[in-house]
Amino acid sequence: MTQFSFELLAEDGAARLGRVHTAHGAIDTPAFMPVGTAATVKAMLPGSVAATGAQIVLGNTYHLMLRPGAERVARLGGLHKFMNWPGPILTDSGGFQVMSLAKLRKLDEDGVTFQSHHDGSRHRLTPESSMDIQRLLDADITMAFDECTPFPATPEQAAVSMRLSMRWAARSKAAFVPRPGYGLFGIVQGGVYPELRADSAKALLEIGFDGYAVGGLAVGEGQEAMFATLEVTTPLLPRDKPRYLMGVGRPSDIIGAVLRGVDMFDCVMPTRSGRTAQAFTRRGTVNLRNARHQDDPRPLEEGCSCPCCRDHSRAYLHHLIRSEEILGPMLLTWHNIQAYQDLMRSLREAIAEGRVAEFAAEAARLEALGDIEVLRHAG
Amino acid sequence: MTQFSFELLAEDGAARLGRVHTAHGAIDTPAFMPVGTAATVKAMLPGSVAATGAQIVLGNTYHLMLRPGAERVARLGGLHKFMNWPGPILTDSGGFQVMSLAKLRKLDEDGVTFQSHHDGSRHRLTPESSMDIQRLLDADITMAFDECTPFPATPEQAAVSMRLSMRWAARSKAAFVPRPGYGLFGIVQGGVYPELRADSAKALLEIGFDGYAVGGLAVGEGQEAMFATLEVTTPLLPRDKPRYLMGVGRPSDIIGAVLRGVDMFDCVMPTRSGRTAQAFTRRGTVNLRNARHQDDPRPLEEGCSCPCCRDHSRAYLHHLIRSEEILGPMLLTWHNIQAYQDLMRSLREAIAEGRVAEFAAEAARLEALGDIEVLRHAG
Repeated sequence: MTQFSFELLAEDGAARLGRVHTAHGAIDTPAFMPVGTAATVKAMLPGSVAATGAQIVLGNTYHLMLRPGAERVARLGGLHKFMNWPGPILTDSGGFQVMSLAKLRKLDEDGVTFQSHHDGSRHRLTPESSMDIQRLLDADITMAFDECTPFPATPEQAAVSMRLSMRWAARSKAAFVPRPGYGLFGIVQGGVYPELRADSAKALLEIGFDGYAVGGLAVGEGQEAMFATLEVTTPLLPRDKPRYLMGVGRPSDIIGAVLRGVDMFDCVMPTRSGRTAQAFTRRGTVNLRNARHQDDPRPLEEGCSCPCCRDHSRAYLHHLIRSEEILGPMLLTWHNIQAYQDLMRSLREAIAEGRVAEFAAEAARLEALGDIEVLRHAG
Repeated sequence: MTQFSFELLAEDGAARLGRVHTAHGAIDTPAFMPVGTAATVKAMLPGSVAATGAQIVLGNTYHLMLRPGAERVARLGGLHKFMNWPGPILTDSGGFQVMSLAKLRKLDEDGVTFQSHHDGSRHRLTPESSMDIQRLLDADITMAFDECTPFPATPEQAAVSMRLSMRWAARSKAAFVPRPGYGLFGIVQGGVYPELRADSAKALLEIGFDGYAVGGLAVGEGQEAMFATLEVTTPLLPRDKPRYLMGVGRPSDIIGAVLRGVDMFDCVMPTRSGRTAQAFTRRGTVNLRNARHQDDPRPLEEGCSCPCCRDHSRAYLHHLIRSEEILGPMLLTWHNIQAYQDLMRSLREAIAEGRVAEFAAEAARLEALGDIEVLRHAG
């Protein structure tokens, strides 16, 4: 039986090439996990998600506990079978989304009471119930239940919040039922305060987890503060465990975080942007709603292997978006997931070849160039 | 170079097995054409449409002339390239949709003036401009410009409308630019009145077309009147040309029309229903929004080869629909298109084997049985 484990295959500065082994397969790192909030990566067939090279997707405990319900997913054979994703799945703990989405939430030492944003029904999440729900969902990677410290927060607020999360982390560990191939990740909190991050990392290491996430970033602090926080945090984490930066981010955020020793990422940006006409390319974001594309026969991104770029013109994508056709979000989501997976593949290759710094510099240069010039229609 | 032609391969009673040859490939008949209104079969990648077995799709002149514009489509290489559908395409003439969708339409002997339902801009369609637009779109099958006679209509109203359509048919023929592999279809009108249908068929035959459509049905007259009208109309049409029943229909409509000598069909029903949680199965329609599916691990339709049925449970489909996830319409549309193509394939096989009447009886028996029983969850 597969044991949950992390192989560190190569290092290039602080950047790491690795492989996470789980009950449902391996994940090459650095890895980007497409978000499948409600048991679907929005606008994508699961086979299409896999075709981009994605090896793991993320599910959201808050959404799934409310609809269709964790017990129902368990009766139907677990989340892998329910959403037809045979590969690894990571679920968040529900903590972050309870605080950002639920109505009338009330936090106490034991957990959080809240009302569903669907129907106002009352629910409760605690470290113990979060572990139970994630077990019912059959997540390969379970996240400890925590409070995502808001930004901005004073040092005192961040400390109080972080210490609560550390007590919840210990309860999460106690409640987590170990199974071969299944892992539990702790989450470092502490806001933008290095001492608190150090205290948090120390507390988590004493408890002992299969991987370590960095939480409470990408919440408005800016890229510079995020990178600074990573620089003081990742060196405190064990080399032989995977590191996951939650909710990040833009391609440049990911590249910078990989340079600072992060292995795993998730973000709604590629999927959400795909539904709002925004495409990610190596030369920055492109808004396909813009009329400059209406006569452009060229692909969104030259050399991209996705069906959007292989089979369709910018003019057609623009037409789909203007016509509010479902195929628009379908194609742009596919492209964006492909672009993110291609970025991760390139990062892995660069680390393996010891040239990740050069890769990062070239990526920054290309992004700064901006989108290729507008083709002026002659006729 | 391919000439536009129709091979009659077998007959079984009035039902016909055939093959239409066009500039962009062949179409096995009886054929169902998925509707790609705005240069996309809604919620489907074109490769997925082809994977169901569909060999031809339909585009709408009214929609495409307004957005993105026929000249733009032509500059971008034609509709096949624009929507990445390399196979045959049929375009309607715009007449039907101008009358049903446009604002402030005004019909005169020469044509129709109307305002776009998008922005109120003023446009005009005549037999000549409709031929021009369909040529710019590069339709393999161009439809003559006609007025779809409303239902109900008195014999006098139906006669006036039909005679206008016949004058427009002659002008359409005169304006159509023949090219190898490209065909022009005339449209029989005359409402539910056999004498008018006969007059219309005679007028069209005198003009001479590459195929003959039956228009003005499926507009509220009911299946019995539709079949009765077909029974007096199809015998008047030449055996060696394809026959197309416009805008039809439910599976039982199609089966009945095939038994009465029709070769080609189009309808928005499978695609539109896919976006409103309605699925077509051999045992009738199934509403996946119904809570009875919420714990049902079985596929929508046993034995169906589409990804919806192959990879997903009714419980999951129900969840997607309740959650308003795009994947719900994507999967149900795929299934519905697959179900229609499977029906056409079965009809072709039955005609080839001389058992189309038995096939029709068995299809009616299965549909009358209704959806398979609800699975009661034990837990």
